[in-house]
Amino acid sequence: MFALTLRRQLHRSLPPLTRGLAQLTQTDIDHFLTLLPPSSVRASLAPGTSTPADLEGYNTDWMGKYIGGSRCVLTPKTTEEVSKAMGYCFERGLGVVPQGGNTGLVGGGTPTGEDQVVISLSQMNRIRSFNPSSGVLTADAGCVLQSLATFLASEGYTMPLDLGAKGSCQIGGNISTNAGGLRMVRYGSLHANVLGLEVVMPDGRVLNGLRGLRKDNTGYHLQHLFVGAEGTLGVVTGVSLLTPVLSPSVNLALLRLPDYAAVLRVFGKLKHSLGEILSAVEYFDETAWAVVSGDGAQGEEVERQVFGAEHVPKGVNMLIETSGSVAEHDEAKLSSLLEELLEGPDVLTGSLAQDETQLARMWELREGIAEACGKAGKVYKYDVSVPIQEWQNVLDTLRARAKKSGGRIERVVGFGHIGDGNLHINVVCGAYGKEVEQLLEPFMFELVASKNGSISAEHGLGVQKAKYIGYSKTPLEVELMRSIKHAFDLKGIMNPGKVILPASEVVH
Amino acid sequence: MFALTLRRQLHRSLPPLTRGLAQLTQTDIDHFLTLLPPSSVRASLAPGTSTPADLEGYNTDWMGKYIGGSRCVLTPKTTEEVSKAMGYCFERGLGVVPQGGNTGLVGGGTPTGEDQVVISLSQMNRIRSFNPSSGVLTADAGCVLQSLATFLASEGYTMPLDLGAKGSCQIGGNISTNAGGLRMVRYGSLHANVLGLEVVMPDGRVLNGLRGLRKDNTGYHLQHLFVGAEGTLGVVTGVSLLTPVLSPSVNLALLRLPDYAAVLRVFGKLKHSLGEILSAVEYFDETAWAVVSGDGAQGEEVERQVFGAEHVPKGVNMLIETSGSVAEHDEAKLSSLLEELLEGPDVLTGSLAQDETQLARMWELREGIAEACGKAGKVYKYDVSVPIQEWQNVLDTLRARAKKSGGRIERVVGFGHIGDGNLHINVVCGAYGKEVEQLLEPFMFELVASKNGSISAEHGLGVQKAKYIGYSKTPLEVELMRSIKHAFDLKGIMNPGKVILPASEVVH
Repeated sequence: MFALTLRRQLHRSLPPLTRGLAQLTQTDIDHFLTLLPPSSVRASLAPGTSTPADLEGYNTDWMGKYIGGSRCVLTPKTTEEVSKAMGYCFERGLGVVPQGGNTGLVGGGTPTGEDQVVISLSQMNRIRSFNPSSGVLTADAGCVLQSLATFLASEGYTMPLDLGAKGSCQIGGNISTNAGGLRMVRYGSLHANVLGLEVVMPDGRVLNGLRGLRKDNTGYHLQHLFVGAEGTLGVVTGVSLLTPVLSPSVNLALLRLPDYAAVLRVFGKLKHSLGEILSAVEYFDETAWAVVSGDGAQGEEVERQVFGAEHVPKGVNMLIETSGSVAEHDEAKLSSLLEELLEGPDVLTGSLAQDETQLARMWELREGIAEACGKAGKVYKYDVSVPIQEWQNVLDTLRARAKKSGGRIERVVGFGHIGDGNLHINVVCGAYGKEVEQLLEPFMFELVASKNGSISAEHGLGVQKAKYIGYSKTPLEVELMRSIKHAFDLKGIMNPGKVILPASEVVH
Repeated sequence: MFALTLRRQLHRSLPPLTRGLAQLTQTDIDHFLTLLPPSSVRASLAPGTSTPADLEGYNTDWMGKYIGGSRCVLTPKTTEEVSKAMGYCFERGLGVVPQGGNTGLVGGGTPTGEDQVVISLSQMNRIRSFNPSSGVLTADAGCVLQSLATFLASEGYTMPLDLGAKGSCQIGGNISTNAGGLRMVRYGSLHANVLGLEVVMPDGRVLNGLRGLRKDNTGYHLQHLFVGAEGTLGVVTGVSLLTPVLSPSVNLALLRLPDYAAVLRVFGKLKHSLGEILSAVEYFDETAWAVVSGDGAQGEEVERQVFGAEHVPKGVNMLIETSGSVAEHDEAKLSSLLEELLEGPDVLTGSLAQDETQLARMWELREGIAEACGKAGKVYKYDVSVPIQEWQNVLDTLRARAKKSGGRIERVVGFGHIGDGNLHINVVCGAYGKEVEQLLEPFMFELVASKNGSISAEHGLGVQKAKYIGYSKTPLEVELMRSIKHAFDLKGIMNPGKVILPASEVVH
């Protein structure tokens, strides 16, 4: 019922997005069947090859928040098939939605109209090549992140990104959303690691940029335009990535600190003491800890277990990961730093994972926060970049605001990638509703803009935040983006209603 | 005389590049004098504020290879002044050449016509801000690379790039050419480290992207378009960079190996053994060694000194640098690897720098190669990306070709950044000349293209290689670049004749 309401809202707010695009007909389906094998064409137009239920997985995002009504899903197996399908859609003026693992959080991969054709990359999942000398991996866009990491581990390498959705998300989707995740502090963003892309352009032509060269200064660096474009400029079908050497030694420490000011001081020390082996620095506040470990006695038991202490003082938490090539060196560095910190006032207690099980348990606590929030209630998610000095300020301001919700907002949960300035805020409510939404938005966006931050650090704009782009980008920046969109996608068929909207639909 | 000849050649070959652009008049100079202080306007039109000799430094690249004839140079001190000047040039349709430290190798910063206005960033050299917690540096584009590194060192940070020209090159030029250099293997390319840019667009409007956020997924990532655009899309006036923590421990080893096959094997071991502390891996072949250390007895004396051995076997060379946070750990890693290597057949002898003097001496040998080639004769420089497995093959093929030059080609010198697949080839001749040039080009470009390489790994296209873009990019890629150029620079006034040429002028 909720999904249906949201769907109606979506449709109500989005008519202009599909303006000028063609209506999907049976003739189109018949034509797709001449281009692709029957198993790669799912259509629910009568007499369809599939039922609407068969298409549901492609029309619904994983949260069940964005529901599209597409009546045609293509699952091509090769770049050539994507090219043929795109070429036809271009000729006809049909909207196209490229889709990866469907794990996005802003509706970027869900259709906004029933005439839009979903092109799912899920059947394109071959590793094309790996060079064990240079570490350059070339793969289909539909490869699942975890499967690439598993393959690389056998070669002594690893993926430069890691995120909670790794078991489902696809590398093409990661690139199209510029996924950040947990290892950015060590390996940098995808801009640092994407060497080249193969992209089927809106008119069906194939941009072949899979040279796999680390350095190539011959003209504009086009691949970076597709990183984070959320499928609005073309369909990414292949990727060439620089992958780092796998670090045999991984250490993880969990710290309890008195307050956020202590977190900032400890982070400063970490960067300089651990330097090149620092691979993740995560923060989660007292509320986040309570949500993920459970309230009352249950939470205290978890605390005693993970910290290995009878009494654990209340406070905020940091998770610090190091990855390096020699275990004894890394342990020496981390242990000596922890000893120093435990002697000072900034760390109340701390625990160093002693084995794989403890390491996994600590990561579970951090990675389980979003899921725990979902179980605790209905969640409004904010994923913002603000200078780390401002995090507490942002959370305090939001909590003061939440008090005016008449109990509708139950908790404001703060956590994030402190190494990257990326704060996640989950606002947990008893129910979704207009009142709460109006209390939160555009309030949150204005708050972030006032700190010169980004209203979407890593989730992207998708359909959810496209109209709010002006809170993080200037009119000139948006104008230049629109000119690129126009130059690359003349007919406006790529992922309609996402990221770059007509000027009249953007909030000013 | 040589310069004059080349200048004439340039002018002869370039008329279409400035087609449609306005002619510079005294009225323009008078107008610039209303926008900028008199000390920021240099013009040699009668009655000029300067003589042609005053403008010579801005019209000549540092090699003396590219000579422009611009009669007007502006040296604005603020972004606002750049904006006003650009706005006027746009209105008038005057060509504009943004210029940094003038250390480029492909003529990208030299005017191609006498009516073009040079905008030198040299007077914009303030550090705007530095955040010691995040490591984010914001600075004017005209800051000299070395001065930024010196400033950062006092804060416990360092620049993510380092190159031979660091004492002259400017960070805006580094970004506009996507400069690579010596530390890329550790810190990644500028795409990894540029967080945002301030750019004066061709119509004078200011794109303000200096938010300094590490993560910001709100629309297309425009800053990456200006990285490597060589000033053809706008004037970069400010930069926001992520800078890494300074590593207190630096170690350097010089190895002598029997042949290139051994280099490849050793490189594989290095990556896995040294992992996160590896900060540079440089290669120079036997010819490069001979040029830089001197032939005969002189060279042998240098060999004995740097290797600290009475007899040093002939062979090729590797320079390996590590940077880390704990000196004893790094030394232990490097020493144990060297011991292992010296026991095997792949390393004949090696030396670990014992102090700053030895470290500097070893780097001098590597960094002095280009200069030594310049002293040995006239040099044709090639800066290519090819898979490292192909380096020997490329050098062998070129040397076979050189034998047909009737003695005109004296040496083929090979060296480069093996960690990045970036091979530099200096072809040393007695004199520049058509015969040699015809022997080398397009032969070299075809050779590189046959290996799926890049004809310009880090130097850029500039004016020298713009017409050869087709050897490294497909027609579709060039078409998309042209569409971006058109969208951003409608009148074609930005750095005319560089990077993106009209289709008719590109070699197919």
